Amino acid sequence: MTQTYTVADYLLDRLAQIGIRHFFGVPGDYNLQFLDHVLAHPQITWVGCANELNAAYAADGYARCKPAAALLTTFGVGELSALNGVAGSYAEYLPVIHVVGTPAQRAQRAGDLLHHSLGDGDFTHFARIAKEVTVAQADLTADNAAVEIDRLIGVALLEHRPVYLMLPSDVAQAPLSAKPAPLMLRQAKLSRSALQAFIAAAREKLLPARRVSLLADFLADRFGAEAALDEWLQAVDIPHATLLLGKGVLDENRAGFVGTYCGGASDPAVKQLIENADVVINVGVRLTDTITAGFTHHLPVEKCIDIQPFEAWVGRQRFSRIPMREAVQALHRLSLSLASRWPLPPIVRPTLPETDGEGLDQHAFWRQIQDFLRPGDIVLADQGTACFGAAALTLPRGCRLIVQALWGSIGYTLPATFGVQTAEPQRRAILLIGDGAAQLTVQELGSMLRDGLKPVIFVLNNQGYTIERAIHGPEQRYNDIARWNWTQLPPALAGERPVKTLRVSDPDGLRQALREVADDDRLAFIEVMLPKMDMPELLDTVSRAIQARNAAA
Amino acid sequence: MTQTYTVADYLLDRLAQIGIRHFFGVPGDYNLQFLDHVLAHPQITWVGCANELNAAYAADGYARCKPAAALLTTFGVGELSALNGVAGSYAEYLPVIHVVGTPAQRAQRAGDLLHHSLGDGDFTHFARIAKEVTVAQADLTADNAAVEIDRLIGVALLEHRPVYLMLPSDVAQAPLSAKPAPLMLRQAKLSRSALQAFIAAAREKLLPARRVSLLADFLADRFGAEAALDEWLQAVDIPHATLLLGKGVLDENRAGFVGTYCGGASDPAVKQLIENADVVINVGVRLTDTITAGFTHHLPVEKCIDIQPFEAWVGRQRFSRIPMREAVQALHRLSLSLASRWPLPPIVRPTLPETDGEGLDQHAFWRQIQDFLRPGDIVLADQGTACFGAAALTLPRGCRLIVQALWGSIGYTLPATFGVQTAEPQRRAILLIGDGAAQLTVQELGSMLRDGLKPVIFVLNNQGYTIERAIHGPEQRYNDIARWNWTQLPPALAGERPVKTLRVSDPDGLRQALREVADDDRLAFIEVMLPKMDMPELLDTVSRAIQARNAAA
Repeated sequence: MTQTYTVADYLLDRLAQIGIRHFFGVPGDYNLQFLDHVLAHPQITWVGCANELNAAYAADGYARCKPAAALLTTFGVGELSALNGVAGSYAEYLPVIHVVGTPAQRAQRAGDLLHHSLGDGDFTHFARIAKEVTVAQADLTADNAAVEIDRLIGVALLEHRPVYLMLPSDVAQAPLSAKPAPLMLRQAKLSRSALQAFIAAAREKLLPARRVSLLADFLADRFGAEAALDEWLQAVDIPHATLLLGKGVLDENRAGFVGTYCGGASDPAVKQLIENADVVINVGVRLTDTITAGFTHHLPVEKCIDIQPFEAWVGRQRFSRIPMREAVQALHRLSLSLASRWPLPPIVRPTLPETDGEGLDQHAFWRQIQDFLRPGDIVLADQGTACFGAAALTLPRGCRLIVQALWGSIGYTLPATFGVQTAEPQRRAILLIGDGAAQLTVQELGSMLRDGLKPVIFVLNNQGYTIERAIHGPEQRYNDIARWNWTQLPPALAGERPVKTLRVSDPDGLRQALREVADDDRLAFIEVMLPKMDMPELLDTVSRAIQARNAAA
Repeated sequence: MTQTYTVADYLLDRLAQIGIRHFFGVPGDYNLQFLDHVLAHPQITWVGCANELNAAYAADGYARCKPAAALLTTFGVGELSALNGVAGSYAEYLPVIHVVGTPAQRAQRAGDLLHHSLGDGDFTHFARIAKEVTVAQADLTADNAAVEIDRLIGVALLEHRPVYLMLPSDVAQAPLSAKPAPLMLRQAKLSRSALQAFIAAAREKLLPARRVSLLADFLADRFGAEAALDEWLQAVDIPHATLLLGKGVLDENRAGFVGTYCGGASDPAVKQLIENADVVINVGVRLTDTITAGFTHHLPVEKCIDIQPFEAWVGRQRFSRIPMREAVQALHRLSLSLASRWPLPPIVRPTLPETDGEGLDQHAFWRQIQDFLRPGDIVLADQGTACFGAAALTLPRGCRLIVQALWGSIGYTLPATFGVQTAEPQRRAILLIGDGAAQLTVQELGSMLRDGLKPVIFVLNNQGYTIERAIHGPEQRYNDIARWNWTQLPPALAGERPVKTLRVSDPDGLRQALREVADDDRLAFIEVMLPKMDMPELLDTVSRAIQARNAAA
């Protein structure tokens, strides 16, 4: 029997063509027809999640490791539950293809009072909602499917942001005439003349400079400028730093790497090396509040060259239609002839302070985590003490850090670890998350165990929302959370799967635990007991800045 | 020291005035200033939830027991996570006052690149999203706060649906000149002439009738017609039924009560008594797909009198500006003189079939649950085998059933139980939920334990999404879920709190368990092992109808 080639198959083939190998989501009756095709697809594996928000977070994590991610939810209830996750992918530039199984076309046209609708016969509410947090939307029919699927995939990859694809249950099964032709992806537009003008302006800016510095942030990772940056900084000595959101995009073991820049909260040496340059080159930087300690950076536009995904700036002069990589490569070539004028200043990279070995506090914890890291690790640090603590780490070669410091949705990293580890099963994923944050999304621990994944998970138990205590109300009851017996939880969610669970409350215990899990072949879950109000210095500074801004009328 | 009276205090006083005693939500740095006032308020208690979706579900449950509910989230991440819950409150008519802590006005005006924003300087995205699922919205300032708060509360109570209130962190603390004056609530408009015309038309319709029946559904509960209905059906014998969504709105122990009506899937006696009447009076009915087994009801408009929240219909004739209660009372008076022509037919109410006592299956389970129920219980049954099984129960006097059969978001009832039990700590709350559904929202179990609440929770473990298996793909892997060791879970989330945990797999075990928990003073958690593909008959019928409609092009 010849299987009919359907809209569902076409969509799946396209996703496979762009490198997607997993589909995250939750079944619902409007997407079950499509799911049959997902299960049958030779290259794509279905990854069921415990709920839709977690599925969206997992897809986001996956899209940080692969060219893109796919997310499947059902109409109304499912897609709205996923919305915060999709919005995070939008804010932080991750291409997540969100497929929503919708009621059959006939029922929609008739305005039937269906479950998962608002009961008003209007099936367009949720598409309007999706429009706010995705870069393109489509409502598929058998006729437009091929064109619209290709359009949405193209936009998602080009803009590196989520798209929204409504797939009625009957359309999923509708036959298509032919298998997909080669996918023609849109490329970012390059204007040769703009590029020449940009180079000329940059040369003029750089020529008189004696000190040049470079800041890279997350958009350099998202728009594929990482390798070009690496080549450049290999060839030319420029003091360089990342911001927290893009930490890991530069090799932190190169001589010119100075540390993590975070505005006024930076280590003084980092601040001086970056801000005191005559010209600061920004690559993929967005100066948001948390990563600049409340806009305390001092980077006057006049002395900046700013490279964004599709345009570049020299001071206040804008050059459009220049893809980021082209601009980076152009500056690389340009600096070859100029760099002899920019001697590399002495760089003393900030290191974590030594600890006295008494109690287990944030200092002692991060000190040991630093030694625990290995090249190639993927570290996920949740918004809170975890990500601000991780800012002070020096990442070994090939080690990645994943934080969500712009969108900042607590709990994100636990399901994101699921997505990351699904995408990169051979690499070690290390999750650092607070107890308050872990409560939001904890059920995905069960999915990781089900799938035999083996991340190393640290739950920083400081009895509640320490990041919120830092900002406001340190002793207020609203920053307390329900007390859980954390070490009993993983076995409860493990079914028959093995899991290693530990609880540590002093430095020696932590040291022992790290030794044990380093050589263990199970998912490891370590509850780390930390003082309630203890926090990384950076968080202390950032949170004071945020509190001041929240109070200001 | 005299405390300044602020916008936050005004809002809280108003909420207290309309009967709200608890505020559900999750702290976030844009709402912490407001939270200080919540904690300080003499009448309102803060109820922290593990995540925002759960908080929205809890608020929805609370609003089913109290005049309204209050929900607090933070800008962006928090409010979007809650959105599915708020949409459910919109679809099913629950007045939830959703307060969102937003960035300070100055930062919004400046278009700052703040965390929890999309990073584009536009702070209006989420208000546009909220507009799709709330009946009124406001962005508070010190100047408009008093007027806007009163307006929103008024609309929420009148339309019995959620509203959206943006509260910038600086506005929360802004001083207000005076304490609130008495709250003037808008009343639904009554047109005396429309009411007279309606009565005349209804008399004409009813006069020749020999058989009259009555159907009541959830809107009768939402718009306060329950007592009026009760008086009417006490005084006049009319065969009456509820639909599943409104089950419990009528006293199921009265002689005229015939059972639960669900279109073609009804018990034949129920179907005949309702549909074969000459006139069918509908009170607060919305004929949605799941509760009519896919629109298999046979209720021709011509023979219906339809009472909606603000209008009434006789056949195709519409009479607007008639509040539901007025219409019910009018029909009550009218029927007093006519009812002697409508002799009550013999009513044999459908009962649960006897079981053979062998294995533990759906029949045996519901049979025992029926006997377990006591007057005054509040039963929550999740969308799935639970709610369709509960449809066949006969509720003891004063016993309520809560299902979410229109919006149908699985996992809803677990946090809703938290809200219900918070509103009604003296009544016994009984939660019936499948294992697949419970995984979505399970962390709120910890909050119930933290707060010392003691619902009786049945997790129906049938190894996955049985409702989805029923609709499509019975053996497909996507309907499997991660296997959890359910009985280990409550102790893990209980901290130091006591909890009673049981697992039953045969009828005797269940019987024993029900005896034990009936006299226990702890939160009880019973895992009920049920066959994977076994399901209540009603679900079987409904799901076949849904599958056919999903497949139809």
